[in-house]
Amino acid sequence: MQIDIRPARSVPSTEALDAVRHGLGALLGNRLVTSLAVRQQHANTLTWIDNQAPDMVVFPETTEEVSAVVRLCAAHNVPVVPFGTGTSFEGHVNAPFGGVSVDTSMMKRIIAVHAEDLDCVIEPGVTRKMLNEHLRDVGLFFPIDPGADASLGGMTATRASGTNAVRYGTMKDNVLALKVVLPNGEVMTTSRRARKSSAGYDLTRLFVGSEGTLGLITEITLKLQGIPEAISAGICPFPSVKAACDATILTIQTGLPVARIELLDALQVKACNIYSKLSLPETPMLFVEFHGTDAGAKEQAERFGEIAAELGGGPFEWATKAEERSRLWQARHDVYWASMALRPGSRGVSTDVCVPISRLSDCIEATQADVAASGLIAPIVGHVGDGNFHVLPLVDMDNPDEIKAAKGFVERLVERALAMEGTCTGEHGVGQGKMKYLEREHGPEALNLMRSLKLAIDPQNIMNPGKIVSL
Amino acid sequence: MQIDIRPARSVPSTEALDAVRHGLGALLGNRLVTSLAVRQQHANTLTWIDNQAPDMVVFPETTEEVSAVVRLCAAHNVPVVPFGTGTSFEGHVNAPFGGVSVDTSMMKRIIAVHAEDLDCVIEPGVTRKMLNEHLRDVGLFFPIDPGADASLGGMTATRASGTNAVRYGTMKDNVLALKVVLPNGEVMTTSRRARKSSAGYDLTRLFVGSEGTLGLITEITLKLQGIPEAISAGICPFPSVKAACDATILTIQTGLPVARIELLDALQVKACNIYSKLSLPETPMLFVEFHGTDAGAKEQAERFGEIAAELGGGPFEWATKAEERSRLWQARHDVYWASMALRPGSRGVSTDVCVPISRLSDCIEATQADVAASGLIAPIVGHVGDGNFHVLPLVDMDNPDEIKAAKGFVERLVERALAMEGTCTGEHGVGQGKMKYLEREHGPEALNLMRSLKLAIDPQNIMNPGKIVSL
Repeated sequence: MQIDIRPARSVPSTEALDAVRHGLGALLGNRLVTSLAVRQQHANTLTWIDNQAPDMVVFPETTEEVSAVVRLCAAHNVPVVPFGTGTSFEGHVNAPFGGVSVDTSMMKRIIAVHAEDLDCVIEPGVTRKMLNEHLRDVGLFFPIDPGADASLGGMTATRASGTNAVRYGTMKDNVLALKVVLPNGEVMTTSRRARKSSAGYDLTRLFVGSEGTLGLITEITLKLQGIPEAISAGICPFPSVKAACDATILTIQTGLPVARIELLDALQVKACNIYSKLSLPETPMLFVEFHGTDAGAKEQAERFGEIAAELGGGPFEWATKAEERSRLWQARHDVYWASMALRPGSRGVSTDVCVPISRLSDCIEATQADVAASGLIAPIVGHVGDGNFHVLPLVDMDNPDEIKAAKGFVERLVERALAMEGTCTGEHGVGQGKMKYLEREHGPEALNLMRSLKLAIDPQNIMNPGKIVSL
Repeated sequence: MQIDIRPARSVPSTEALDAVRHGLGALLGNRLVTSLAVRQQHANTLTWIDNQAPDMVVFPETTEEVSAVVRLCAAHNVPVVPFGTGTSFEGHVNAPFGGVSVDTSMMKRIIAVHAEDLDCVIEPGVTRKMLNEHLRDVGLFFPIDPGADASLGGMTATRASGTNAVRYGTMKDNVLALKVVLPNGEVMTTSRRARKSSAGYDLTRLFVGSEGTLGLITEITLKLQGIPEAISAGICPFPSVKAACDATILTIQTGLPVARIELLDALQVKACNIYSKLSLPETPMLFVEFHGTDAGAKEQAERFGEIAAELGGGPFEWATKAEERSRLWQARHDVYWASMALRPGSRGVSTDVCVPISRLSDCIEATQADVAASGLIAPIVGHVGDGNFHVLPLVDMDNPDEIKAAKGFVERLVERALAMEGTCTGEHGVGQGKMKYLEREHGPEALNLMRSLKLAIDPQNIMNPGKIVSL
């Protein structure tokens, strides 16, 4: 694929910014904010990636306003950086070329819930917890759970997944259609509310995971699920990471429709014991959850117990009561905070990779050895049903040597995953942090194709420039 | 989205064709075929769309050969039309601008089966039955079943689905990665074998359903499933289409993981009775199938029976024995032939639409009324769990009035589906037949975006020109 035009993105001129600021002020009044604190808040600060603040932040309320903002920015060649809740790790919301951060937090209407069709139409600022709160009364839920109470716009843009993905898929599988403001300000819908379609190119999937680089999502049609009649959950210790991974493989091969199957390594269990006041054995541990009918969930649990025992795991402890289950899963959800508490004052630099599940235990064990050899403290949590795991090096950000060691570690982690037919990120996305790995992962042809797509849709390169691909 | 360059595709010059024919002969020997019979065989003849034969047909054996074919065609601006088994309905394999039909039937290696990862890597000419035959010994299967024993390359290219999609999804959900020969002959891989990834634009989904217009698929990595321990199946008559659809909605809302739920309208049941020597009541009927553990499949079946009774359906008859189940599902699979037998000598012009399931019974009932008013004979079969149904007008192709009536009927069917937030095709694809509906379905912005994508990837418009979008 030959790319003829590669517009070198630069910082907008003072005149361009003045014109946009003036126009946005007229359009949005006090929903245009230029204070340094708010601008910095809208740039990424969760890892070692520098905070690169936008020139201004706007809070539109409607698709029409977003379209007007983008038209104005396009007219003056000023970057547009979409912002959800700012919980991403890879610098997605940073503004390396300045421009306008478009905060979608005032777009949080739940436009429609179609219970018979198991879908809903929402605005991008709705968070997953808000949505589930709203749905509870109709007996439905939205399953994707990346941990943070992220906005569904951000989750769509980054192709998020999380603990439930092994059963319910990722955002790619749960978005039916999108309304998108294109880089020229036009408003487009990607698909219809029908459950499936073969009517042309899959524009929905093109925008899911495009991280705001192709357009700004202003409406999302999501698939929903019925709240299961019964949920059974439990935890099971294993003698090794390999035994836990083998039990996971066998569980999935057997066709047990496990809803969640999460690995905590020994260090992570230790952190949880301290933080969540548990007394779990400090050995690799699987947290599992099954959804179904009363009899079905029970049967699945029993089967899993047998599989675990076969692989040398156990005893498998059931949390049949809702409170007990909540307490365990709360501990699982709090791993980030629990890990941070292992080393107060440090910063947890979260990263993730994903490999075919047959390679998972090799990959995790080699990673643990690397953690030890690098002198890092870095607990591991895995969505092991998908072959996806997170490592959280706890880094003293005042110590350049330690930052260097952690960066080298992440580099080797990605290399390791790629060598095992894996990906440099299973669910965190590319942002700024993982751009350098894309060519190694996909090859030059695919990367060039991605560039062509970006260029075809955003020839000015105003939509979240400096993310995913550079032009 | 402004499109600046719209290359008007034209038929290649005699010189260009001669050069390509010469080059292909040198490359492939007798795997280049130019006889009229073979060329016509490689063009669509299943509906009223004219047979538009390619200028030549090639039978490559490797990705490298496909790449060489495409490079040669690109050098001479000659169209390339991918061909699987030729079972599509909408003229996908027609060659309106002539060129080279690339028949993938000699690319049928099963390259790898990774049982632990529940995936396999295959060539595009492998058909779904071949693959399942191969997988049986390892206890795995590939679930997507569009009816015909189609090639998996063709199924990928048209985003096929079928009876199992309600539980296992469509091709979009079951392709992990593709190797693709791009319109300039470069070979690209779209993704890795990892179960999920958020590493950049979703190139896999861009090519799934692109109908050969963006490149030619030469390798496919597919997700597999464990063969369920138990399969239970049965049939249930309903007093009306609405009652059957309502039972379907309730089944899905309840979270019953039904593997297949198929509606046959009264006329279709009549056709099956005659063709498959059954004695079913000639009223709307649901064919259902459940996969799970012994206890699980049984429980699901009982629940379904209760739901059906609640909606006035029944009696629900179970086919617990494998032979009995096969006989029923064989009848379901033979609906196309059974329908044709209703009117010997006619041609069944199969078409499909898909709507949100809450609108399905309205859509089917209005369609039945339209069938009657149009004086057509047209049985209906629906993958009702997805809101997708097929209508098969049986047309006397020697009667221009009847063809006109049937064309008008299809036009109104699509309009009806679009008015109900549906799509002009749930699984057949666009090809030539449904191009005219895309703008109405997606709007001008989305259609222009599709055109930009096509143009960015295939600036010469050599890949299957005249399908999906016109340039």
